[in-house]
Amino acid sequence: MHSNNQASFEFQVTATSSTTRARAAVLKTTHGSVHTPVFMPVGTLASVKSLTPEDLVAAGARIILGNTYHLYLRPGCEVVQRFGGLHGFMHWDRPILTDSGGFQVFSLAKLSKLSEEGYAFQSHIDGSRHLLTPEKAVDIQLCLNSDILMCLDQCAGYPGTRQEIRQALDLTTRWAERSRQAWMNRIGMDRTGMDRSAAGNTLFGIVQGGMFSDLRQKAVELLSEIDFPGYAIGGLSVGEPKNLMLEMADYTLSLLPTDRPRYVMGVGTPEDLVEMVAMGADMFDCVMPTRNARNGQLFTSSGTMNIGNARFKDDTAPVDPSCTCYTCRNYSRAYLRHLYKSRELLAYRLNTLHNIHYYTSLASTMRRAIQNDEWDDFRNRFCNQARLATNNI
Amino acid sequence: MHSNNQASFEFQVTATSSTTRARAAVLKTTHGSVHTPVFMPVGTLASVKSLTPEDLVAAGARIILGNTYHLYLRPGCEVVQRFGGLHGFMHWDRPILTDSGGFQVFSLAKLSKLSEEGYAFQSHIDGSRHLLTPEKAVDIQLCLNSDILMCLDQCAGYPGTRQEIRQALDLTTRWAERSRQAWMNRIGMDRTGMDRSAAGNTLFGIVQGGMFSDLRQKAVELLSEIDFPGYAIGGLSVGEPKNLMLEMADYTLSLLPTDRPRYVMGVGTPEDLVEMVAMGADMFDCVMPTRNARNGQLFTSSGTMNIGNARFKDDTAPVDPSCTCYTCRNYSRAYLRHLYKSRELLAYRLNTLHNIHYYTSLASTMRRAIQNDEWDDFRNRFCNQARLATNNI
Repeated sequence: MHSNNQASFEFQVTATSSTTRARAAVLKTTHGSVHTPVFMPVGTLASVKSLTPEDLVAAGARIILGNTYHLYLRPGCEVVQRFGGLHGFMHWDRPILTDSGGFQVFSLAKLSKLSEEGYAFQSHIDGSRHLLTPEKAVDIQLCLNSDILMCLDQCAGYPGTRQEIRQALDLTTRWAERSRQAWMNRIGMDRTGMDRSAAGNTLFGIVQGGMFSDLRQKAVELLSEIDFPGYAIGGLSVGEPKNLMLEMADYTLSLLPTDRPRYVMGVGTPEDLVEMVAMGADMFDCVMPTRNARNGQLFTSSGTMNIGNARFKDDTAPVDPSCTCYTCRNYSRAYLRHLYKSRELLAYRLNTLHNIHYYTSLASTMRRAIQNDEWDDFRNRFCNQARLATNNI
Repeated sequence: MHSNNQASFEFQVTATSSTTRARAAVLKTTHGSVHTPVFMPVGTLASVKSLTPEDLVAAGARIILGNTYHLYLRPGCEVVQRFGGLHGFMHWDRPILTDSGGFQVFSLAKLSKLSEEGYAFQSHIDGSRHLLTPEKAVDIQLCLNSDILMCLDQCAGYPGTRQEIRQALDLTTRWAERSRQAWMNRIGMDRTGMDRSAAGNTLFGIVQGGMFSDLRQKAVELLSEIDFPGYAIGGLSVGEPKNLMLEMADYTLSLLPTDRPRYVMGVGTPEDLVEMVAMGADMFDCVMPTRNARNGQLFTSSGTMNIGNARFKDDTAPVDPSCTCYTCRNYSRAYLRHLYKSRELLAYRLNTLHNIHYYTSLASTMRRAIQNDEWDDFRNRFCNQARLATNNI
């Protein structure tokens, strides 16, 4: 078990698979415990699109992700701070993880300029100018009062030359040191009673290194020296072939300390989650279940389903007869197709509920398989279903 | 008390105001009882936009309206019929009233052509050609299996010449006869066991007559001869001045039989509802609370509020501190403004919940005032609040 400086954050592995690196664990935060492996729905703008917090809990979500870049620009820290942070602002009382904003600056902002200091950028909304430094990223996240903060990092993208990736890795390391220092300073302020909002948060480091195994190894070594309570793997699912992504994830996960949570950022398909849990990953976030839901793509135990398809026109069956979510318990494919084709707002919500339930159920099923040391059985069943689904399409 | 041919539909006045024509009543249907005065949220396409049936119940809705024209075109009767009607299709087990489709054909369809037979029109979605007759309107609504069906009518619009209005009224009367006959025929079929879907529905007539008092009187006489279990007033809120609308409503409501429900179609503002309940109206439907919610306009006890307004940027208060709806119990104006400005899907839902709750609460408050014979007190309080709200703006 690892305890960091703050008693409020703890991570305890409760079961390990005897045949893989898969493990079940409990992650304790001031806003409650989370059982891993866990999938975190993305709530970019203080809302998991179309859902209330009650919906999220009913769909099995226990921790969600907020996007620092978006929230910093809209509604802005000064607004969220009036509510004591994101929890009060959005009426969600369970754990929240926030990213550092770096990836969004890189991908969304206009005229982003990288320097040793940080990212200088213009807002994609109103063109206003901002500077995002590692210290500022920590400050914003402390103001959002998320339970888990991420260090500002540089994701070099794919493909990148060895030199580019190495430079990004070194900058990420220096920023990790600065982030850690900023976080400790704020914690120190808290101890003198000057800033109580910092109590109870924790900070994860991010492993970069692109598709170079030795650079991934280097990144793990450098970050481990700084000593973070948890480690994320960044720079995956950025355009590389699937096999390469899995190979890099596997190698990097094998290097990370066993007593700290391991979070694979921005990943992935249900198959990716299963593969990476077997490699020892604990936490995931991805827009796939929510975004695809809004585009009418639903995940089921027998593959994905495009609910707008004409063949569901008068189909009275639920999306997935084996699913226990609110949508499948109460609505038919025909009704969901009708809502989707008619662009009714309820379509986005019912689809999103279902997809999140699918992802959180998959995580629960994996947890049970690990706890019962039945991982191989679980994976065989899962792969057989996936194969059958592919054949059906 | 009026009982029509079917024991499943009953209307019973339970209290009357001693100073106005306001009355409280119970409307019994096969899908349960509804206490009047009642506001019916509009669920055009088998969905009150953004809400689930559970949301609607929590917001105080007990009966909703479906639009026959829209549902006939999408998803189509044959789909809804597979679910035994709208209730099963959309997962709503309380009463449903459907309009006849005439008004939508008139306002939405392309190349609508009116004849004695009915409306020939082209779908606004795909241009397909259809003929909506009084008989077909009944058949569609029986297929939708709504609890209360409406006769196909001709709304002549405003302004109209006396001759135009009289012609529309006469056509509406002949169509009402045909509708009643079609409905009776289907009920007969039900008695022989050929069409069980007809069991438990009822059919209302619609009073037209434009802004001519004597034509309104004529319409009431003609429809009363046909003898409907309930009467609706159509052709109001079609562009005429507010005073004229209220004058026509007042006069027409004074003529309608006291032992039948009186439904004012497509009306109105909260003030309209209060005025018309005092005139003896029992039922209302209007897109105002739902549509305005999606445009950020919220109804409160102290007037309307545009939630996108900059002055709510960091306002931690609920929309209406005296409101007990889910939105006001859990969210701030600042959060709702943020969602609305960010075009988050949740904005539409939280706003809609609040506005429907406002309308259903207003109806409940009016019921209690009638039951306690305190109508004048209620109306004075309501008007004072409205005056204060106007002064505040």
